[in-house]
Amino acid sequence: MTGPPPAVAAVRSAVRGALSGLDAGSLVLVACSGGADSLALAGATAFAAPRMGLRAGGVTVDHGLQEGSTERAAEVVATMRGLGLDPAESVAVRVGAEGGPEGAARRARFTALDEAARRLGAAAVLLGHTRDDQAETVLLRLARGSGGRSLSGMPARSGRYLRPLLAAPRAQVHTACADMGLKAWSDPHNSDPAYARSRVRTDALPVLERTLGPGIAEALARTADLLRDDAEALDAWTRAAEAGVREGAGADTALDAASLAELPRAVRTRLLRRAAVAAGAPAGSLFAVHVAELDRLVSDWRGQAHVDLPGGIRGVRRQGRIAFDPAAGGGGHGDRPS
Amino acid sequence: MTGPPPAVAAVRSAVRGALSGLDAGSLVLVACSGGADSLALAGATAFAAPRMGLRAGGVTVDHGLQEGSTERAAEVVATMRGLGLDPAESVAVRVGAEGGPEGAARRARFTALDEAARRLGAAAVLLGHTRDDQAETVLLRLARGSGGRSLSGMPARSGRYLRPLLAAPRAQVHTACADMGLKAWSDPHNSDPAYARSRVRTDALPVLERTLGPGIAEALARTADLLRDDAEALDAWTRAAEAGVREGAGADTALDAASLAELPRAVRTRLLRRAAVAAGAPAGSLFAVHVAELDRLVSDWRGQAHVDLPGGIRGVRRQGRIAFDPAAGGGGHGDRPS
Repeated sequence: MTGPPPAVAAVRSAVRGALSGLDAGSLVLVACSGGADSLALAGATAFAAPRMGLRAGGVTVDHGLQEGSTERAAEVVATMRGLGLDPAESVAVRVGAEGGPEGAARRARFTALDEAARRLGAAAVLLGHTRDDQAETVLLRLARGSGGRSLSGMPARSGRYLRPLLAAPRAQVHTACADMGLKAWSDPHNSDPAYARSRVRTDALPVLERTLGPGIAEALARTADLLRDDAEALDAWTRAAEAGVREGAGADTALDAASLAELPRAVRTRLLRRAAVAAGAPAGSLFAVHVAELDRLVSDWRGQAHVDLPGGIRGVRRQGRIAFDPAAGGGGHGDRPS
Repeated sequence: MTGPPPAVAAVRSAVRGALSGLDAGSLVLVACSGGADSLALAGATAFAAPRMGLRAGGVTVDHGLQEGSTERAAEVVATMRGLGLDPAESVAVRVGAEGGPEGAARRARFTALDEAARRLGAAAVLLGHTRDDQAETVLLRLARGSGGRSLSGMPARSGRYLRPLLAAPRAQVHTACADMGLKAWSDPHNSDPAYARSRVRTDALPVLERTLGPGIAEALARTADLLRDDAEALDAWTRAAEAGVREGAGADTALDAASLAELPRAVRTRLLRRAAVAAGAPAGSLFAVHVAELDRLVSDWRGQAHVDLPGGIRGVRRQGRIAFDPAAGGGGHGDRPS
């Protein structure tokens, strides 16, 4: 008796590993776009889950952004049914405009997946991201220069979301898809140079492979794992240190400057960032450069008047404390000049 | 009265910032290859140091690797003298073969600079690395996938070595060099595709700029700064945690597994790495994958026999402790199969 082809065996094994902690009888939902990655995931889950006493279903999200997307979603549902996934559903979403096309589509997709998981009582939602997706994510975030937490990429497990294939090379997953006899859909967005991720995939990573060696995707993914460990340890330290530094809460938060000064800068800047967000600065607009200026009120204090922050607030040092005030003129949104 | 051209003013200002903590009368030595970066640094230091009550000298290292290197070193010395640097010296080194051509040249260069600094009584040695060099370093180290400490790049200050231009774009430094009327030497190695760094410079960074945006060098350098802060905080935590975990020293080091298990993985793996190196594993051959296997003796203990490590040692779990034994057959070098 011969076993399955090696790529199929590897993908099934990765799925079994990811599902190993779930209670018998639980429903797991595969989020399937019809692309080779999530199709291989669907095939492997349809095989592995029942053998582990789990129920396997699938959801495809119709973003309504491309001609024929509804017909394609129906085909994906049919393929999932053919694999034995039950329930197998298509969910239509409306993609907004905020945060760029990729961000808006992503938000709409996760809202729909959350809703489907709740409605169907799923214990886990499986996403088809591979090691190469992780490498692309790290490179995209490197370009932002926003530090370790951001560079730590996508987690293999976050709440109900699991990414069983995050350590698997994309080529292996594509081989598994073909070996399972599944016909994948190739999203034109994946090679559309209008999208930063597709430019990274088709231009940046191949050049990095040529200049730095063929192991670059693996190295980037490993970097993400190591930096995620680092970020978790530093976040734990930050939470533990907060009690000894923080006075008040919400908009009235103040931090004792002398206690802050004794902390390593990595912990101090994380604390300052959390306090600024608690005081009303939008996390997504608060950049490292803002936090560095805030830190100078502690580590390089020369009587600076204040530090303007996004969200219409400013950081000030007053009576040995770092506090947050409304910017001059009161309230308002966005960056203000100093 | 007009001031100096903007690029010259920026480079001088960076040098003043780096030298601000030194005692009056101290000697600072510029390490000058004759390339545009270190030549601009030499010019700015010759201008700024005397105005700060410091003495400025220069050293150029003749690596003896290229035809005419001795004549070129003599020209660099003449240029440094012309700028007013005193002493201005050329030091010849013999580059070995160990660790690849770039590593061997680097080691020989730093040995010679250390020796010159001691002999001349220099308080600081200034290196001409720019923000672009830092970005290249981060990319080269990314390819190794060895985590945060490695990605934190070159420090602006390390012992007697200072890098005043580490936040300055290379283009600005080159403009400053030309504006000072200094004629730079272009090292053919910098564009020789045999060297990984030159491939990164000529191929990888330009493509990343095109795909990710023109701010990539700055983002990589900022990433290095943030990750250096993170690494320092985690190293401090590791040192503080060591006392509660470690028993014995040197080759007899053992670590209490239960205490290790309570630490975050980032701290635990750093502790395991330090212990393995103390027990005789060569730091340069001990990779993340070795440390991850060692960590499984703590975090995923199922009675594994041992973990083979470079340097002819193995990690074992015995009576609730992680210890290090000679590999079977005793002593020896390099990796051994398990």
